Amino acid sequence: MPAFDEAAALVSIPDAGAAAKARRRQDQLTKPAGSLGRLEDAGIQLAAIAGVCPPPVPEPAVVGVFAGDHGVLAEGVTPWPQEVTAQMVANFCAGGAAVNVLAGHVGAAVIVVDVGVASDLPAHPRLRSAKVRAGTANLAEGPAMTESEARQALDVGAQLAAELAESGTRCLLTGDMGIGNTTPSAAIIAALTGRAALEVTGRGTGIDDERWAKKVRVVEAAVARLGAGADPLEVLAAVGGLEIAALAGFVVGGAAARLPVVLDGVIAGAAALVATALVPECAGYLFAGHRSTEPGAAAVLEHLGLAPLIDLDLRLGEGTGACLALPVLQGAAKILRDMATFESAGVTEDHG
Amino acid sequence: MPAFDEAAALVSIPDAGAAAKARRRQDQLTKPAGSLGRLEDAGIQLAAIAGVCPPPVPEPAVVGVFAGDHGVLAEGVTPWPQEVTAQMVANFCAGGAAVNVLAGHVGAAVIVVDVGVASDLPAHPRLRSAKVRAGTANLAEGPAMTESEARQALDVGAQLAAELAESGTRCLLTGDMGIGNTTPSAAIIAALTGRAALEVTGRGTGIDDERWAKKVRVVEAAVARLGAGADPLEVLAAVGGLEIAALAGFVVGGAAARLPVVLDGVIAGAAALVATALVPECAGYLFAGHRSTEPGAAAVLEHLGLAPLIDLDLRLGEGTGACLALPVLQGAAKILRDMATFESAGVTEDHG
Repeated sequence: MPAFDEAAALVSIPDAGAAAKARRRQDQLTKPAGSLGRLEDAGIQLAAIAGVCPPPVPEPAVVGVFAGDHGVLAEGVTPWPQEVTAQMVANFCAGGAAVNVLAGHVGAAVIVVDVGVASDLPAHPRLRSAKVRAGTANLAEGPAMTESEARQALDVGAQLAAELAESGTRCLLTGDMGIGNTTPSAAIIAALTGRAALEVTGRGTGIDDERWAKKVRVVEAAVARLGAGADPLEVLAAVGGLEIAALAGFVVGGAAARLPVVLDGVIAGAAALVATALVPECAGYLFAGHRSTEPGAAAVLEHLGLAPLIDLDLRLGEGTGACLALPVLQGAAKILRDMATFESAGVTEDHG
Repeated sequence: MPAFDEAAALVSIPDAGAAAKARRRQDQLTKPAGSLGRLEDAGIQLAAIAGVCPPPVPEPAVVGVFAGDHGVLAEGVTPWPQEVTAQMVANFCAGGAAVNVLAGHVGAAVIVVDVGVASDLPAHPRLRSAKVRAGTANLAEGPAMTESEARQALDVGAQLAAELAESGTRCLLTGDMGIGNTTPSAAIIAALTGRAALEVTGRGTGIDDERWAKKVRVVEAAVARLGAGADPLEVLAAVGGLEIAALAGFVVGGAAARLPVVLDGVIAGAAALVATALVPECAGYLFAGHRSTEPGAAAVLEHLGLAPLIDLDLRLGEGTGACLALPVLQGAAKILRDMATFESAGVTEDHG
């Protein structure tokens, strides 16, 4: 069976019993009930995901950085040339990019996956070659890829997640690289949330008004071409990206292995929308690493009911926001595992 | 010279030249300009504080958890009995509290300082005994302490900061313990920001409407008694707390040693208001660890122009929010130190 289908069949909703146990434990720990706010919620969700309380600390963690190119660059949606995707992959391999620094800082490993970079890339121990095609077609002119290619990319992500889980990884972080990829992300978000292109199309790495207006028109037209009845796979193939498809597979693969999956920004958000549209049960395994300044990111968080662990006006991508959120998530697990209870510490509870 | 006065004389504003150098470096690193948002700002501020770019990574870090009791408990402002302060100090010493877990998680040490706990505390290696008096007087009936006692508590904090800096600590985190201490904090915040008691008085660890209304009245009356012409030391003595005074000294001591100081929640915020009112130059050394749900915390952040590194609806105190923010700050420094530049990585810059 293809890796994605296998993963999809395995996903079940997180364990409500373990969540209830974690909720009770939060109230026994030496702190006023609820005083650790959303850190308590994160701990409860980790318990539900692992099916046990206290939950294991989500480590070791791996950032899967999926890379692909985009035919839509022909429309002038970004000032960055396509060659930067491959150059940045080389930078990831050499360890000089922001995601390398922040992943190293939080103790996460980085794996780069070429799922659709336009040029041939030299082999590197940190690079997995899984190219489905050498960049998407221009989504302004027709489908970005075929449904078969979209499925292959879903498999790439699901397969990596399964392998990482098998070899002991206990937390997946999403990363991405692809010059132009905020355009397909905006199109997916518009198509799957029903929001207007204008609302969910941002300035990506930083573009001027003219370019932004052009980008909005491209997203609008692509979504209009899809029509209302398109299923998630059609949406993904028509207006998506290869790295976005692979990330959707990575999310579902993580959920299948009962691992927490920390989303980075708007690209990961688009992938999470696809993943949850295809396999609704995977929603319970998701954490929003941060809230990107890209407007589409906020739309995704609202649609999925996720609150970000970090909120620092990041808009870089690569997995940087997911990395910064990892220590928070690990702290949430350690609170449940290591804190004293009122009883064990001999601390008086409040008198109401 | 008293430790606080010595520190106050040493504080100078952070180095604008190092900040400018860091700002230029941010734009040379392999990422779109500004795409790491407030993480870039934090890195620039760290460079200014250290006077060098890239700045040293702020480690090792120490959480100074200052503990004191409050005579205002007689007014019924909290359901927690006073004995919990001493019980929680014992919990900090034993390592079972939330701050122990989160400090350990982020690699920070915890030092507990008895600056004003009502009862005698058994000696412990992690506990520094520096009791100025056995709890404050009831601020609803008169000054919480004398100005001389406030000065002694300022010295306790400044002295600890100086010792920590001397022995190699490179980042100070503020922590606190004191049943009832959101009441003096609200009073200080109202007095020093000019806001109404109603706006800055919160529910602390969680109180009902009746108790909250009582607390607002207590804060209102205490601030009214102070009058408009009160200087910061008068405010501190009249409506403050011993641990708050010590924290203000800790902040000034950190700034004197050119160390970044990460504030926790509303108690630290009140202390930071006192510190910056006494020594305005110390403002540049402050980072807001998080934004507590206590309304006074938001008022402080606005008054000081600080944006929180973390925002997870925490309201525990102890230093927990400062601990969670530490990895973010360290990541900000590592970005400046370790990332490749466009030139070194051979990555094409955008074409405008």
